[in-house]
Amino acid sequence: MANGKKLKKIITEIFKNHGLNRTHAKISSDAIINAEYVGAYGHGLSRLKMYCERISKKVINPKPKIKIKKISQSISLIDADNSIGFVAADIAIKKSIQNAKKTGIGMVAVKNSGHYGLSGYYAEQAVKKNLITMIYTSAPPAVAPYGASKSLFGTNPICFGTPTGSKIPFILDTSISMINRGKIRVAARNNKKIPEGVALDKFGKPTIDAKKALEGVQLPIAGFRGSGLAWMVDILSGVLTGSNHAGRVKDPFDDFSGPQNIGHLFITFKTNLFVKNYNNRIKNNIKTIKKLPKVKSIKKIMYPGENKFYRFKTNSKKDIKITETVKKDLKNLSN
Amino acid sequence: MANGKKLKKIITEIFKNHGLNRTHAKISSDAIINAEYVGAYGHGLSRLKMYCERISKKVINPKPKIKIKKISQSISLIDADNSIGFVAADIAIKKSIQNAKKTGIGMVAVKNSGHYGLSGYYAEQAVKKNLITMIYTSAPPAVAPYGASKSLFGTNPICFGTPTGSKIPFILDTSISMINRGKIRVAARNNKKIPEGVALDKFGKPTIDAKKALEGVQLPIAGFRGSGLAWMVDILSGVLTGSNHAGRVKDPFDDFSGPQNIGHLFITFKTNLFVKNYNNRIKNNIKTIKKLPKVKSIKKIMYPGENKFYRFKTNSKKDIKITETVKKDLKNLSN
Repeated sequence: MANGKKLKKIITEIFKNHGLNRTHAKISSDAIINAEYVGAYGHGLSRLKMYCERISKKVINPKPKIKIKKISQSISLIDADNSIGFVAADIAIKKSIQNAKKTGIGMVAVKNSGHYGLSGYYAEQAVKKNLITMIYTSAPPAVAPYGASKSLFGTNPICFGTPTGSKIPFILDTSISMINRGKIRVAARNNKKIPEGVALDKFGKPTIDAKKALEGVQLPIAGFRGSGLAWMVDILSGVLTGSNHAGRVKDPFDDFSGPQNIGHLFITFKTNLFVKNYNNRIKNNIKTIKKLPKVKSIKKIMYPGENKFYRFKTNSKKDIKITETVKKDLKNLSN
Repeated sequence: MANGKKLKKIITEIFKNHGLNRTHAKISSDAIINAEYVGAYGHGLSRLKMYCERISKKVINPKPKIKIKKISQSISLIDADNSIGFVAADIAIKKSIQNAKKTGIGMVAVKNSGHYGLSGYYAEQAVKKNLITMIYTSAPPAVAPYGASKSLFGTNPICFGTPTGSKIPFILDTSISMINRGKIRVAARNNKKIPEGVALDKFGKPTIDAKKALEGVQLPIAGFRGSGLAWMVDILSGVLTGSNHAGRVKDPFDDFSGPQNIGHLFITFKTNLFVKNYNNRIKNNIKTIKKLPKVKSIKKIMYPGENKFYRFKTNSKKDIKITETVKKDLKNLSN
């Protein structure tokens, strides 16, 4: 167990010692601790060692010269110069917010970036500024396209955030695979099993062994439909932005032969473009849906992001649980 | 069996006789025949009688005063004045294309519209102009939100279209339910069964009886994830646009107590905003994915829209199969 604030400081120092400036180090450690607080452990401390290794092996650039190119009043392109993904995404969502505030809609593409953690974390920034946002990012091969026996698509999340008229934002952040790859990684590191029906081993046989699943293929949601959604994300974040696509994003844990060149796309717009009373309308929408009769196994109908909000609230008051592996990582990386 | 061109003329005349002007009648009959050609029978001739009934009962306005409001150079709001959905959607996609050509990105919201058939049909228009498009529309209650025992979301399709550098567009047009409601309707009209695992009857029991499924609840893809995506579409096309949402879109077949007030959202943008060689990049993307090793049951990896393109090509050369029900409808409506 360790105090979150202290941990943030430790991680900031680790990143600084690896060459990041204070601002970039802080952005990155904030994102990692946030992932722990919301219970997305696959995007949290378990990745710290990997980020540092990538910096040491020069496939993440600790001193990036990030360029923002104005395409129009609404549209910008960011070349992240192989920065750590957190920093690229943080600049991008802020630019997207700025463009949307100015013109009603903002669209920001990012190229030469890396894994940035949770899309929902950036969506929150836009929602706090009373904007709606849609975020797409690609990821290393994990999911087989429909009909293929080999992975190519990433878990390619689709993220959508909107203000709700309450302090709890609506944030849908759903990968296109049956399970997040981060969860499988955590299971593999801790020798835990994964659920049935979410992955095949490298021979195409169903498996609940996390390590075998990592070598095999993850299954998309809803067959051809989920595969199509993953393909859409590959196009929006890869083909469109000038980033790697079609399975060429390198696995950050296993492949140090070069930068990932991940692409992201951020679309952000005002809630009051077409109606004056958006907040009342969405409040009413959520209220109506929450009041529906429930199936027996469910106590409360929740909207996307609600659970995460409560987890953050509870967990951020408590110390963070640290596995033995992470403990060792922290010790080694601090030296 | 009937010739497609002749059928188009017959349907145009039927709509004209119901009060639509020639242009609106032609837009509507084109969309209906296109649905037949691509094999989306649930959006084709089986709906003609319903549209005419709604016009006769004054819940579709045959002489709408459609207003286009400019929000910005990129953004427009269309008040469709309860027009037939086809006409509203046709104007909206054209406006969205215009805005995108002018500024790089176009966003068009539509309110006071009705069922417009297939989202992919409008996406094709944008793709033909070398644009990428994302289209959202709501629909009458059919799918239960995760945890609820009552339908509220529509089958709420997510549609994404992009040029491919070939004549076959990439058009993902996927409802959020396990099966399209239109398919269940066609099965019910023709006393056919539906697949297992796609619907529950009104008592919450799994059913393969199409009529019982229509009275019951359709299942979303991927549980909480699919439910979240359907909710997103309800917000984007309903809450945001000023249209009905949260289950208040009336069923066009069963509820003539007022107009549907369906909302749509069209987002359209240029392919060359961030890269110069988009068409080469997407060609390469598709080529790479098609070359993957295949599972035994699949001969060819297809991208979304490819199958539909081939179906259109084959079917538009042949006569259209007409059920006895439709034959009767055409006869009655022509009188």
